[in-house]
Amino acid sequence: MSELAEVGYGRLSIEAVARRAGVGKTAIYRRWSNKLEMVMEIISDVAERKVPLPDTGSFSGDLQLLLMIVSTALQHRIASQIIPDLMAEAARNPQIAETLQRALRTHQQAVGEKLIGQAVTRGELPEGTDPEVAVDMILGPLYWRLAVARQPIGEDYLEKFTVAVTAALRATG
Amino acid sequence: MSELAEVGYGRLSIEAVARRAGVGKTAIYRRWSNKLEMVMEIISDVAERKVPLPDTGSFSGDLQLLLMIVSTALQHRIASQIIPDLMAEAARNPQIAETLQRALRTHQQAVGEKLIGQAVTRGELPEGTDPEVAVDMILGPLYWRLAVARQPIGEDYLEKFTVAVTAALRATG
Repeated sequence: MSELAEVGYGRLSIEAVARRAGVGKTAIYRRWSNKLEMVMEIISDVAERKVPLPDTGSFSGDLQLLLMIVSTALQHRIASQIIPDLMAEAARNPQIAETLQRALRTHQQAVGEKLIGQAVTRGELPEGTDPEVAVDMILGPLYWRLAVARQPIGEDYLEKFTVAVTAALRATG
Repeated sequence: MSELAEVGYGRLSIEAVARRAGVGKTAIYRRWSNKLEMVMEIISDVAERKVPLPDTGSFSGDLQLLLMIVSTALQHRIASQIIPDLMAEAARNPQIAETLQRALRTHQQAVGEKLIGQAVTRGELPEGTDPEVAVDMILGPLYWRLAVARQPIGEDYLEKFTVAVTAALRATG
């Protein structure tokens, strides 16, 4: 992961990974036949880790906690190097694109079903709330700001944003 | 642009660009001393083109038109290849990062000032509407869906989204 973050997928070499891990090249090749396989296993591994979804008892609590988790992750040095790099490779490599999209979809659905589902059950969001639009509205602006525009978020940003998203979701129900 | 979209920044070579443009390598080197300079001028050029901002007379009309323009642009083959690639380079190359961020900020501010400003003047959005949060909420979800998750948008998506964003902005004022 560190080597990938530092040099990027295009410049990543099995040799450098082996050196960094303090093992021989053959040890790496025994496990993966090429760098694509190696990187895809890393992505799948991370993707399958269950992200503990917040369950605070209220939608506004859940949402604030989720936004904190996501914004911390997006600001992490390794994530902020690896994510754009894999996105770029995905635009050219259908295998990477599919692995990434499957990973994203899994998390996207988990957030949609759990967070939005619970809020609907508790009557905090209307019955017909569209979980797809909801997840786009929750994750999109944060990703845009932190990973694309790379602008810091001020102290009251997450709070304002929670209010905005809640209003947005109530309106789409 | 086509060569950049096809092979990506990392693999882009002045030779290939010259071949594609049907000129000699020296013609390219007369104008730019290296590929970084060349690509940065392309970005700045595109960035300085004034995006014609919609002015339909109502915030909901403006917003729907803007969302259509942005979603068409993000789905364009060249944009969907070049943007992730430049984002990845930006994570490693401060010069590219700065050029991209300046370009983004210019557009972001134009959208914020014109669209949100007009809506506030017309009384469609509350006085204190935060243009930064507003632009994140307008561009973020579309970017997330089309450029990151790469999921298509259904027929009624933009309409639902317009309703959601409008409610969100009214709530943050």
